[in-house]
Amino acid sequence: SGLVLVKNPHLDLMEEDVLYHLDLGTKTHNLPAMFGDIKFVCVGGSPNRMRAFAQFMHRELGLAGAGEDVADICAGSDRYAMYRAGPVLSISHGMGIPSISIMLHELIKLLHHAKCRDVTIIRIGTSGGLGIEAGSVVITDTAVDSSFQPRFEQVVLDDVVVRSTELDKDLAEELLACSREIPDFPTLIGHTMCTYDFYEGQGRLDGALCSFSSEKKLEYLRRAYDAGVRNIEMESTAFAALCGLCGLKGESCLPPTL
Amino acid sequence: SGLVLVKNPHLDLMEEDVLYHLDLGTKTHNLPAMFGDIKFVCVGGSPNRMRAFAQFMHRELGLAGAGEDVADICAGSDRYAMYRAGPVLSISHGMGIPSISIMLHELIKLLHHAKCRDVTIIRIGTSGGLGIEAGSVVITDTAVDSSFQPRFEQVVLDDVVVRSTELDKDLAEELLACSREIPDFPTLIGHTMCTYDFYEGQGRLDGALCSFSSEKKLEYLRRAYDAGVRNIEMESTAFAALCGLCGLKGESCLPPTL
Repeated sequence: SGLVLVKNPHLDLMEEDVLYHLDLGTKTHNLPAMFGDIKFVCVGGSPNRMRAFAQFMHRELGLAGAGEDVADICAGSDRYAMYRAGPVLSISHGMGIPSISIMLHELIKLLHHAKCRDVTIIRIGTSGGLGIEAGSVVITDTAVDSSFQPRFEQVVLDDVVVRSTELDKDLAEELLACSREIPDFPTLIGHTMCTYDFYEGQGRLDGALCSFSSEKKLEYLRRAYDAGVRNIEMESTAFAALCGLCGLKGESCLPPTL
Repeated sequence: SGLVLVKNPHLDLMEEDVLYHLDLGTKTHNLPAMFGDIKFVCVGGSPNRMRAFAQFMHRELGLAGAGEDVADICAGSDRYAMYRAGPVLSISHGMGIPSISIMLHELIKLLHHAKCRDVTIIRIGTSGGLGIEAGSVVITDTAVDSSFQPRFEQVVLDDVVVRSTELDKDLAEELLACSREIPDFPTLIGHTMCTYDFYEGQGRLDGALCSFSSEKKLEYLRRAYDAGVRNIEMESTAFAALCGLCGLKGESCLPPTL
């Protein structure tokens, strides 16, 4: 049916659903009227960049009014920022799996309550490149964990639940085809590795703590490259798992900073 | 010596240390002049609340000038916000372990470069209470993981490193004694449980996904209570581990929202 799915039998029993971190709710807002026509959701870590992206989309889509004035729909909360430009929603998610997970839980419920159909979600945040040309964009086919495995392991009370992290292959190919139409826009499809830590977890030598040698770091990153990893960031496995489970056509399309 | 320690031999070899997410650096800023006299650092998730806290401290300390005008020292970055009021630094850390870890790595290096001595750090963010009176404040003696163990497990390249999560017991008692001086200010010392996920990980029934029954949730939370847990949040194990390793006298002092 193309609807966004929630997989929680308890939700039907709730009189009101408050999306705490978005400052929205089913009793305080008319979610179908506000969001029913949304077809694309773009997410990234930084609120300023997601505002700039909404302004860019406003201009690209030729929408009426000044794009500079896009309003933060979540202005009542400083956890996330949300802007819209026509059928495109642009939302920040902060840094790391716990932060993007909270946003995605509430976004998925928002799209469900709003009865949105056939929604495509694309993560456009930053990442660190691995053995690729500077300025390239990596379109993720599969998000992998720090053992290079396509899985998102999550603790749910006493259990460790393992979820798949595959992304939409057709959407990846479609995005790659789009990039081909733009001159000098190096783009490739590859695996994206997701870590819980920016400094030690990504083999960086410039954190407050570092217990490994530069040789050990290089050997690890070489094995990551051989396993198909082309960039590293901190949200993709949770993004792929949650979107996949809830019927959102998802893709991650990341410009590495290195 | 009371100095803040970094445990990274590579740092000495670097000509410049850029604290990317704070928009500060050793070549662009005179860190000893800016921060050398800092004695207290208070951290919490929300940037607006940490600004309000800096304004409050400005008034409490009777500092000159209007506290309302406190400037964001990290204004060039929208990842974190940082304010100071006399010897007190007030910084936001976003939500979750990965987000607070990035901030703490850069904060610890900042305090190290600034040659600060005898710094006390206190987390004052929100949390969810467990079987305690509404409005109570929980001072953490030990941060525990979702198995109620006092440890922070972190993946560093191929290895799983396990770190201690004990906090400063003397500081906890000192904070408790302070609270006793204020009438009607229910405060207790207990364990704080740290999870990677707000919805499924904390046994909430109102996320986009939920695969457990309310009975299972209650049974899990009862066991957490029996293990000494009095509140639940998403940063304390990383906070305790990083502060402990780097010689920061740390405490977590959290007002539960429920």
